[in-house]
Amino acid sequence: MLPATLNNEQWIYARRPERRVGPEHYERRATALDPAVAANEVVVEVRYVSVDPYMRIQQATRDTYDVPHPLGIVQRAGTVGQVVASASARFAPGDWVLGYGGWQRYHRAHADELQKLDPAAAPVTTALGVLGMPGRTAWFGLMDAGRPKPGETLVVSGAAGAVGSLVAQFGKRAGCTVIGIAGGADKCRFLTKRLGLDAAIDYRNFSTALAMAAELQRVAGGVDVYFDNVGGWITDAVIPLIRRRARIIICGAISQYDGGLDQPEPGPRLLQHMLFQRATIQGILARDYAHRMDEMRPIVAPWVQRGEIVFEETIVEGFDNLPQALNSLFTGANLGKLLVRI
Amino acid sequence: MLPATLNNEQWIYARRPERRVGPEHYERRATALDPAVAANEVVVEVRYVSVDPYMRIQQATRDTYDVPHPLGIVQRAGTVGQVVASASARFAPGDWVLGYGGWQRYHRAHADELQKLDPAAAPVTTALGVLGMPGRTAWFGLMDAGRPKPGETLVVSGAAGAVGSLVAQFGKRAGCTVIGIAGGADKCRFLTKRLGLDAAIDYRNFSTALAMAAELQRVAGGVDVYFDNVGGWITDAVIPLIRRRARIIICGAISQYDGGLDQPEPGPRLLQHMLFQRATIQGILARDYAHRMDEMRPIVAPWVQRGEIVFEETIVEGFDNLPQALNSLFTGANLGKLLVRI
Repeated sequence: MLPATLNNEQWIYARRPERRVGPEHYERRATALDPAVAANEVVVEVRYVSVDPYMRIQQATRDTYDVPHPLGIVQRAGTVGQVVASASARFAPGDWVLGYGGWQRYHRAHADELQKLDPAAAPVTTALGVLGMPGRTAWFGLMDAGRPKPGETLVVSGAAGAVGSLVAQFGKRAGCTVIGIAGGADKCRFLTKRLGLDAAIDYRNFSTALAMAAELQRVAGGVDVYFDNVGGWITDAVIPLIRRRARIIICGAISQYDGGLDQPEPGPRLLQHMLFQRATIQGILARDYAHRMDEMRPIVAPWVQRGEIVFEETIVEGFDNLPQALNSLFTGANLGKLLVRI
Repeated sequence: MLPATLNNEQWIYARRPERRVGPEHYERRATALDPAVAANEVVVEVRYVSVDPYMRIQQATRDTYDVPHPLGIVQRAGTVGQVVASASARFAPGDWVLGYGGWQRYHRAHADELQKLDPAAAPVTTALGVLGMPGRTAWFGLMDAGRPKPGETLVVSGAAGAVGSLVAQFGKRAGCTVIGIAGGADKCRFLTKRLGLDAAIDYRNFSTALAMAAELQRVAGGVDVYFDNVGGWITDAVIPLIRRRARIIICGAISQYDGGLDQPEPGPRLLQHMLFQRATIQGILARDYAHRMDEMRPIVAPWVQRGEIVFEETIVEGFDNLPQALNSLFTGANLGKLLVRI
């Protein structure tokens, strides 16, 4: 029996960040949520909140792929939770669901906005990771846009992150030599020891793109597919090493998310390499592949079920810590998928 | 009856340019050429020399799409000339041929290196222009890489040049709204009055990419296909205006050919726009389409024969002026295809 009102708490996106986003851009609000549900409505108690780099893109002051995230509303985010009230035949209290509830303890949704999860088939958090948006981004970004061929060399930036760590593993399965770029010795060990990559490069060991390029050239020789999550000077190091007909996938540019989307920072002009090598750059976004999950799931879900894919999670505890968790994404604190459990 | 030796003259590529290429990087040499021909050999007297931006790419000190042009040899260039001696059944003295003779008055070639031209079918210089390498670059670069659709907006940089002026016209025929970017009022008049483009933007009227972008946005609204011959700050103005699924074709980066290939100049990081719009950048090179002239010719040659394509030529007179003609390519002196008649 539910109480007459639920004590909801929310994090309101209150101020636009000029540089790095952090707690100072949010305000906390307590509200009452009426658990009564109209036809097809469902009320969900949020258990896990997805923390993703795209959230900072949406905070740019200019239009990006959407108009900027409005101020004064609950910070949007993907969520996994449990149904507490339902007027839909498809959902019963206690059911685990994937939704887009944002930074709040409870959210109300139409049944069509929710996807029921089977905790017996896979951990529910995989719906926010390997079997969800990051997995889709990695799978279609690599396989559809990257078109890796056995024997080719795949370089992945942000390789220890949610998307990058999956791209790297999918690349190994596609028969590529895979080199991951990440920040710090721990992440690099993770890449070679846990994920089985052929090599890992710790960008923190290099102070210039040229220096890192020399190491990448030594290790990789050249680059056939570059899956880019970070942009900036790391990408400057990779582009001059592309081979004939290389494919560059722009999945993210996290190095530029501290204001560089509003005021682009300068970097060397390198587009002539596209001409030299007759290469392509393609920008991708998870939403473009949302309708193709039925292509991915039959391939990737069995790998997950058989334990053949490493899907590391960094779980931050507590609703209080949501703004700080988002901030930490940009300091490189997380290994694999960053989640907040509330 | 040929003399025992032909008085050949050559321009030797003698010194690598650090910035702009010019006469100071060449040395003139007089040599004797024996007109005797072995089986399948042909000796050609050069009449027209093609002057193309790619020649400066090949003078970069680093590998580009080839190893750098060697020093101490005749400057390579496409040529149209007339056969003076032939030991091939396919060529007779007086025949017009397309070859790769370089900067010299006579060149010796294997018959397989030459292509016979029919002066009655089209002016022989079109083999160096609309029906040759620049035409192929424009046709396949736009139609194959750019995939223009009726109603889309095509922006062409270097639009008054050999390739750009053809791209612009092919774009109009494909049903696009076409906006050309060029330097100077005369070129812009040529674009709108002679080529019938929807608008022309004189980049010399703007001192920043942002200012030109505002004008381009006013005129074009947005950009579906961008055919880029120039790179640099002009491209900086276009990229932020791309629409969803835009295609950017990197055909050249002439603004960077004064040393920027060796020491890349800084420019704003803009690759995130590829992500925002799920757009592609593709580098193209004429040689990739050399085997597909039989697809292009049946379409484009009739347009040429019926006078439906404007193929402007800027013809510099005299062997003496070859180095200066190459230099002038980078000051924007030419309208359409730049040739030297010798």
